[in-house]
Amino acid sequence: MNNKIFLGIDPGLHISGFGILKKEHNKTFLLESGFLKMNPTHPLPNRVRKFHDYFDQKISAFSITDLSLETPFLGKNAQNFLKLGYLRGILYLLSTKHSLVIHEFSPREIKQTVTGFGGASKEQVARVMVQFFPGLKSPDKLDVTDALAISLCGLWQQKRL
Amino acid sequence: MNNKIFLGIDPGLHISGFGILKKEHNKTFLLESGFLKMNPTHPLPNRVRKFHDYFDQKISAFSITDLSLETPFLGKNAQNFLKLGYLRGILYLLSTKHSLVIHEFSPREIKQTVTGFGGASKEQVARVMVQFFPGLKSPDKLDVTDALAISLCGLWQQKRL
Repeated sequence: MNNKIFLGIDPGLHISGFGILKKEHNKTFLLESGFLKMNPTHPLPNRVRKFHDYFDQKISAFSITDLSLETPFLGKNAQNFLKLGYLRGILYLLSTKHSLVIHEFSPREIKQTVTGFGGASKEQVARVMVQFFPGLKSPDKLDVTDALAISLCGLWQQKRL
Repeated sequence: MNNKIFLGIDPGLHISGFGILKKEHNKTFLLESGFLKMNPTHPLPNRVRKFHDYFDQKISAFSITDLSLETPFLGKNAQNFLKLGYLRGILYLLSTKHSLVIHEFSPREIKQTVTGFGGASKEQVARVMVQFFPGLKSPDKLDVTDALAISLCGLWQQKRL
């Protein structure tokens, strides 16, 4: 299993950042990064569908083998937590359709892995990502650099196993 | 729109009760009720997929037009709340695929509508359901009678509009 292609996603019903990384002969390549923006005024079912179709297509187009996610924590808003569940359900469905291996990490673990400091800010994570991937347009959305960090964490943890 | 076919679901990652009701010329018919049981030791993505495929098939087989759901509330277990989100995300996805109208009610509203008392117990709801639908094997799982009540609530509220 030398060629692994990791999709890292930071899902949201407004902005979902993503980063696609390829590991080849111990080198890491950035294949694509970006975000899906959805209109918060659109009905939830339509946004859930859009999220499904968008990542279904990305997974096929890039022959993704691994999906990397952040463990969700209940914040102040229980409804947002539930809505995050909608999108994770979709990702689980897609993982079975495309036979993806799922990796999940706590936010702290991701920050520790990519910056060396578990308490790093989103801005610090973004700076490290820009250093790793000079092709990344800077400054990018923090949702995108967050997703890249999730993807990179999956890829590195994989390497260690 | 005289012929409406309501699917009421009480989703769960272990047991999901459902009830399918048809409204024809102001009469209500029970088409099917039952539950999907999933093995709690199976990986979450597989259960999410099984839930998707099971209800995808039911919706097609019964030409469902309307989906009736209970508003979820955050209980003591935040992880269960999140997992409920997975299944709701799947139902949203299916609603767009099959052009279903979604109806959502609070637990209180459902109990009030079907028993006349918002604080009714699950057992009371079950007894009323058995009276309404004598074909229902009694005693049935409370997940099934709950789902039937959700379905019936949607169908009745619909009639009022």
